[in-house]
Amino acid sequence: MPTSTITEQARQMKLVAPRMAATSLGARNAALAAIAQGLQDHANEIFAANQLDLEAARQNDVAPTVQKRLRYDQKKMAESLAQLSGLQGLPDPIGKVSLHRQLDEGLVLTRVSCPIGVIGVIFEARPDALVQVASLCIKSGNCAILKGGKETAHTNRVLFQVVHDAAVSAGIDPAALALAESHAQVDELLGCDAYVDLLIPRGSNGFVRYIMDHTHIPVMGHSSGVCHVYVDGAADQDMAVRVVVDAKTQYPAVCNAAETLLVQRSIAKEFLPKAARGLAEHGARLRGTAEVVDILRDVEGIPAVERMSDDEFGTEYGDYIMSCALVDDVRQAVDHINRWGSHHTDAIVTADDQTAEYFLQMVDSAGVYRNCSTRFADGYRYGFGAEVGISTGKLHARGPVGLDGLQTYKYRLVGHGDVVADFAEGRRQFNFRDL
Amino acid sequence: MPTSTITEQARQMKLVAPRMAATSLGARNAALAAIAQGLQDHANEIFAANQLDLEAARQNDVAPTVQKRLRYDQKKMAESLAQLSGLQGLPDPIGKVSLHRQLDEGLVLTRVSCPIGVIGVIFEARPDALVQVASLCIKSGNCAILKGGKETAHTNRVLFQVVHDAAVSAGIDPAALALAESHAQVDELLGCDAYVDLLIPRGSNGFVRYIMDHTHIPVMGHSSGVCHVYVDGAADQDMAVRVVVDAKTQYPAVCNAAETLLVQRSIAKEFLPKAARGLAEHGARLRGTAEVVDILRDVEGIPAVERMSDDEFGTEYGDYIMSCALVDDVRQAVDHINRWGSHHTDAIVTADDQTAEYFLQMVDSAGVYRNCSTRFADGYRYGFGAEVGISTGKLHARGPVGLDGLQTYKYRLVGHGDVVADFAEGRRQFNFRDL
Repeated sequence: MPTSTITEQARQMKLVAPRMAATSLGARNAALAAIAQGLQDHANEIFAANQLDLEAARQNDVAPTVQKRLRYDQKKMAESLAQLSGLQGLPDPIGKVSLHRQLDEGLVLTRVSCPIGVIGVIFEARPDALVQVASLCIKSGNCAILKGGKETAHTNRVLFQVVHDAAVSAGIDPAALALAESHAQVDELLGCDAYVDLLIPRGSNGFVRYIMDHTHIPVMGHSSGVCHVYVDGAADQDMAVRVVVDAKTQYPAVCNAAETLLVQRSIAKEFLPKAARGLAEHGARLRGTAEVVDILRDVEGIPAVERMSDDEFGTEYGDYIMSCALVDDVRQAVDHINRWGSHHTDAIVTADDQTAEYFLQMVDSAGVYRNCSTRFADGYRYGFGAEVGISTGKLHARGPVGLDGLQTYKYRLVGHGDVVADFAEGRRQFNFRDL
Repeated sequence: MPTSTITEQARQMKLVAPRMAATSLGARNAALAAIAQGLQDHANEIFAANQLDLEAARQNDVAPTVQKRLRYDQKKMAESLAQLSGLQGLPDPIGKVSLHRQLDEGLVLTRVSCPIGVIGVIFEARPDALVQVASLCIKSGNCAILKGGKETAHTNRVLFQVVHDAAVSAGIDPAALALAESHAQVDELLGCDAYVDLLIPRGSNGFVRYIMDHTHIPVMGHSSGVCHVYVDGAADQDMAVRVVVDAKTQYPAVCNAAETLLVQRSIAKEFLPKAARGLAEHGARLRGTAEVVDILRDVEGIPAVERMSDDEFGTEYGDYIMSCALVDDVRQAVDHINRWGSHHTDAIVTADDQTAEYFLQMVDSAGVYRNCSTRFADGYRYGFGAEVGISTGKLHARGPVGLDGLQTYKYRLVGHGDVVADFAEGRRQFNFRDL
């Protein structure tokens, strides 16, 4: 285990990064296979470390739902192994050619994907995240500094040791992976803008904002998840109820769960009671504008609908509660979403192609969905193998960030002694041709 | 001309952005054609405004080389017209599909390019830049707030009016383009993180750093241009002299001009005198390490070679001066470049394929060149029509930023009532298939 400072490790990593970027796909996949083997070989050690974390959590009266997230057991390991196996099967993200162009006879430009370099990932207290993030960084040819939640410190330390040893045994440079363990080390990491190319913080809005405000390193983080489902007049209403219920209740604590239901006014009296009942059956309730409260006042079998004010539509509940408003049409729905949403993922339910196309075109979000639940916004469900985070920014990567999001590109230009003076002085002319 | 505040204009722009993103290629090209016509129709007015700026520059004793850059005359207008015509011929950057995948039967994901939205570009005192930046933003479907150098305020105002009127006449929303004129307005712009998606500052390092330190808006800027030419032992030495001379002297003030010459030690005694003479013929001189000074001490017809210290290799001269050091081999050259360079553009001259491949792979720069001048690093020379800037960051866009660099993407997911619960509870399995 390295004992030098984070700054020293980051400096070393920056030097190693070009070699890491040049490793073969075979070497990187071999490292993933070695990690899978290492996890199995050290299962008892890992589970024992996890018991220490779980015991501490119990002693500290950590909420049971959170305790569940801290657990790393056979089931979680099986998920890690499945993910590692899936990742090995994915094509190499490095070396993809996105431009191949002759500038003039014998002067050829190629734009090729390559790893970003040194990435710092700060993730929540979930031990499986360490394995996931490390393996994504290895497969994508990046060096990584990993910092997990302190509630799983024992598990993280053993998992990191296993991952690191396995990667090194497969030929990866020992300096390519490092573990940060304390808040002080995170603050040190934030000052490493000379060596670290990208920070990916996962966690609360406040935490991501803190990171952004205290570093010159580019940050890829998601701000929040205020996702919408708009039920259009032309919707199949049974389908709409199913989608709304799934988007709100399948896992309300996550960022791709829906927070607001928008309904076209023309169908509100018919649809709202069905939606409210569907939500109630899954333990969720609505808050709404005066109109919504009126329509649902005498509906039986649903919880009372609380009146909400217009300026609350930016609320991320993360709970079994959903805001609700009526709109005239898809245009008003889009305006509402672009104004109050967090540009994460928003869905329309409609059978009308033109209405759907307007929505998909005009909603300014990373994910724009038709007739399906916002909960699909996830790297695994998109077939990326896993995700290192979800970006609600528009720069670089947007939405779930998988292997491709951990790449940049470089321009290779190969000539035969070509000089700009010849072009500037008219002796040669550019002759662009895509190859 | 709009008279509302920058904040109000940015707020309005954010609302207009989805409509701007939905404009057809025909409408955007028509706007470019109208701008070309408008420039010709208002040529006298534009040139008269430019005379006011030039007169003020003369009265303020602005350096003649800078005065030259402020000029907007028939020749500059011809360049603008050529650029507008070239841009019209380029394919639509919007709507490019980079992923098309079935997640399961009837559930289809598409990743489609779309404009970033609202972009603020702050550029140097060069009136042609206003036309270039505005037309790139229009072609790429973005809204833009433009701020040019105050030394060309009169010209900028008239040019903006012409561009704006022309774009509006072609159906572009009047709120899609705005002009900022004062430093106070720039400071106001920096606070518009709720409305502006990206800032592109062009200018000195200090200026770019100031912008980065005073805004929460993502910034795409280039830090500096410390570019290298490495002359390998296996180089064609005549070619190497030609490349070095062009890279240093063809236009020394720009960021893609080379600042450092690295030479493999084994050929230094033979090559350095040739290189120094070639540079001297174009008015440039070398500064070097003790070895370099020794080798060039008795060479005739070249200026004295000043001794430089090791910690000066990060210097961007922007002038007819070049740092020089010897290295053992390509490995040492790469280490030097990755340590001291600015990750902009670096070239190797060699006839050896393996050496070249090592250099192109291992140098961590936006542009890695073989046997050609670093001066080719430019959006126009890459066939992008023009460039809105050059990025030395690795996130989002790297190197010259053209139309593609002004795009983000969104994920469209279309289903038939699909919900995550079905997958989570084992009733359905993902069945990924690229279409």
